Amino acid sequence: MPDPGLSPLQSSLPAAAARFGAHVLAQALAPTRAEGVEAPAEAGPALPPLPGPPSAPFAVPAAEAVPAPPDVVDVPLPADAPAPADVPAPADVFVPESGALERILRGPTGLGTSGLYLARRGEPPTPESPAAPAEGTPIPGLYHHPVPEPDSARVAEVSRRIKRWAVDEVQAYPPEWEDQFDGFSVGRYMVACHPDAPTVDHLMLATRLMVAENVVDDVYCEDHGGSPVGLGGRLLLAHTALDPVHTTQEYAPAWAESLLSDAPRRSYRSAMEYFVQAATPSQADRFRHDMARLHMGYLAEAAWAETAYVPTVAEYLAMRQFNNFRPCPTITDTVGGYELPADLHALPGMQRVIALAGNATTISNDLYSYTKELESPGLHLNLPVVIAQQEGLSDKEGYLKAVEVHNELMHEFEAAAAELAAASPDPRLVRFLRGVAVWVDGNHYWHQTNTYRYSLPDFW
Amino acid sequence: MPDPGLSPLQSSLPAAAARFGAHVLAQALAPTRAEGVEAPAEAGPALPPLPGPPSAPFAVPAAEAVPAPPDVVDVPLPADAPAPADVPAPADVFVPESGALERILRGPTGLGTSGLYLARRGEPPTPESPAAPAEGTPIPGLYHHPVPEPDSARVAEVSRRIKRWAVDEVQAYPPEWEDQFDGFSVGRYMVACHPDAPTVDHLMLATRLMVAENVVDDVYCEDHGGSPVGLGGRLLLAHTALDPVHTTQEYAPAWAESLLSDAPRRSYRSAMEYFVQAATPSQADRFRHDMARLHMGYLAEAAWAETAYVPTVAEYLAMRQFNNFRPCPTITDTVGGYELPADLHALPGMQRVIALAGNATTISNDLYSYTKELESPGLHLNLPVVIAQQEGLSDKEGYLKAVEVHNELMHEFEAAAAELAAASPDPRLVRFLRGVAVWVDGNHYWHQTNTYRYSLPDFW
Repeated sequence: MPDPGLSPLQSSLPAAAARFGAHVLAQALAPTRAEGVEAPAEAGPALPPLPGPPSAPFAVPAAEAVPAPPDVVDVPLPADAPAPADVPAPADVFVPESGALERILRGPTGLGTSGLYLARRGEPPTPESPAAPAEGTPIPGLYHHPVPEPDSARVAEVSRRIKRWAVDEVQAYPPEWEDQFDGFSVGRYMVACHPDAPTVDHLMLATRLMVAENVVDDVYCEDHGGSPVGLGGRLLLAHTALDPVHTTQEYAPAWAESLLSDAPRRSYRSAMEYFVQAATPSQADRFRHDMARLHMGYLAEAAWAETAYVPTVAEYLAMRQFNNFRPCPTITDTVGGYELPADLHALPGMQRVIALAGNATTISNDLYSYTKELESPGLHLNLPVVIAQQEGLSDKEGYLKAVEVHNELMHEFEAAAAELAAASPDPRLVRFLRGVAVWVDGNHYWHQTNTYRYSLPDFW
Repeated sequence: MPDPGLSPLQSSLPAAAARFGAHVLAQALAPTRAEGVEAPAEAGPALPPLPGPPSAPFAVPAAEAVPAPPDVVDVPLPADAPAPADVPAPADVFVPESGALERILRGPTGLGTSGLYLARRGEPPTPESPAAPAEGTPIPGLYHHPVPEPDSARVAEVSRRIKRWAVDEVQAYPPEWEDQFDGFSVGRYMVACHPDAPTVDHLMLATRLMVAENVVDDVYCEDHGGSPVGLGGRLLLAHTALDPVHTTQEYAPAWAESLLSDAPRRSYRSAMEYFVQAATPSQADRFRHDMARLHMGYLAEAAWAETAYVPTVAEYLAMRQFNNFRPCPTITDTVGGYELPADLHALPGMQRVIALAGNATTISNDLYSYTKELESPGLHLNLPVVIAQQEGLSDKEGYLKAVEVHNELMHEFEAAAAELAAASPDPRLVRFLRGVAVWVDGNHYWHQTNTYRYSLPDFW
């Protein structure tokens, strides 16, 4: 059975922070930048307005940045939308016990992802989620947390803008793949994963990168002509769109031109150019590292496919920590308009939280895409398949054991995050942990509701 | 013709720093930790004594660290060694013009790598370099800077300790490869590259990692049974010895045991365990990122080998920015006992300096190992070979053009470093730039003098 209700992390984090005073959490919950709301001093540098295409110099690190007054423009919100205080809390939302801290936290719609919107109280009211419930069924027994329906105005605007970017600006897909692009529902995905993004411009940072990562995977690795043979060369050259080459005057132009020579590189190059404009250098460095991990993961999977090697379960899980969603949740601070400082990001405790969150979401992907991958040619490795093969189990037994693995990773993630928040109650750290948790939940929501791509096996 | 004499970087950096006052450079030149010398407050956390094998918790980041009094023990220096003040400056050492800044800088032996030893004046005297000149001839026309002969007592001690580690502690090599291990001369290499390491313990951090990187390359990729086929899986599993897997209780033990299952993983695991003990979390994160880059570079090279693809020169140079020495110079601060803060490391200007330094040293390796690689089976790609093939040049013309490429990279590196030092005169940044420059010079010294491995072609 699924375990509905709001993420325990979202209650345990406040509980942990309470040991150090409610102000810590209040700071963590307040978005650092939103329309008309001034960023608190603790929140790191303000995000500069995003031009498109970018041409400004690199952002300066937090220590040197002078917060600029916000001047971004977001999607206008309809005047007749209900004020947040008028919206009843969903029945499954966690309601903390009474007390001073809880009164700070509860807010008009209860504690949860909506808490990330607290600073919007003074703004025009937000439209509530569409009346229709989300499509799709969660995997029975999968430990997860439902999320509020993403803001439909934002979804529409992100969907409109990302299609223009993908089709016109970088020519990421030929017109005949348009139905697949629509079926990807990336606008809904990113709005669900980043409810605290101050503006649509911020959401676009994540959305372009997500699309670019899928173009690379599709074209180089999987669905659209990819192959494990020669993949190492293709991925490295694409990686230079994220991590630029510094070379001689004679050869630099050929490298720069190479970045425009195919859809994966055009997509990476453009998405990264926008990202670097908005990110601090340390945030960009963090993202490059996560992408290098991702590419190493692709290459391990490709090597095993090429040699028809079936890894042990432990080896598969190791590979899947690299071929992983990690680059997506770890930009939550840039998309949220603040910075988790590099030294806090590097803490072993934070590295563990991020790894566990990435692993849980990635195994969730294995489970939702199980039937889709069964239909692809050859043996497509995923956790249920590897467990069944290596442990002599039936397909169903392998799948159900993989659900248990996922659930343990989720519990470990939540425990590690609560422990870290208690040990290091920096408001940026606590907000980042919540951002990762919300990303995990939004990612599950997208998988559950993406019936265009995914369907469940008949195991129950 | 080679361009002898001390690195212009080592004069241009002081010149740049002088704009901001001599105290900046004085701080940069003073080692932060050496026997009996107290670390200045600006120098970041003191390095804890290195146990072996390590068991202490991770180091804390700079902001939280409380500098401990130094209590490391180094190799005793012979009592009859000449005091530095008695050693005449080599004829080719740059001597700055007179003035207050220069008087601070010049010291008893002139400005240069020896400047990194200034804090040793109050200590027992250092033995001077062996009387015998270094063996080997520099490549004619290769722009480089000679270095003082490395401290022979340190070379001897590092050589003794690293052999015990490689043979007994991690069983990195079977006994029959001992001559190759000796021929690698890694003690001499690392002492030349890290003249400012406060102790032999610090030098061992770099030396273990260098040996481990070579074990992985030898066993998985090249000389000792490596193959491009399946390499992606092997490298990823080895990478988890640097970047640990966070997984479920059932599968974690199998992963941990896998790290002891072959020489590459045993070497990585142990070398990283020592490194993490001494490094801040951000330094460890930086190193992991550089190693992910290295592994991506190996995999691009392997993909091209497997598909018999000859890249364009620009593509080859891009690959070589990843399959690159970069992880070695970028640990110069950990080996030096201080920290370049993560935000300074991530600056675009610093990323450019590091990339150019890594590229220059790596192309230098292509040039020194040219004849060695000609003897290996199949077509071994290196810059002279790729230039000759792709630009229709003779072997000699290709080689000589590759020398020019190297020289331009070196000049660009030095210009970028001087520019960065002028723009960001933080003493840790300036010291780090000097450390990278000294590493580049020490790396050239090792290639030039390693006649066991390298010989020059007959092109002059």
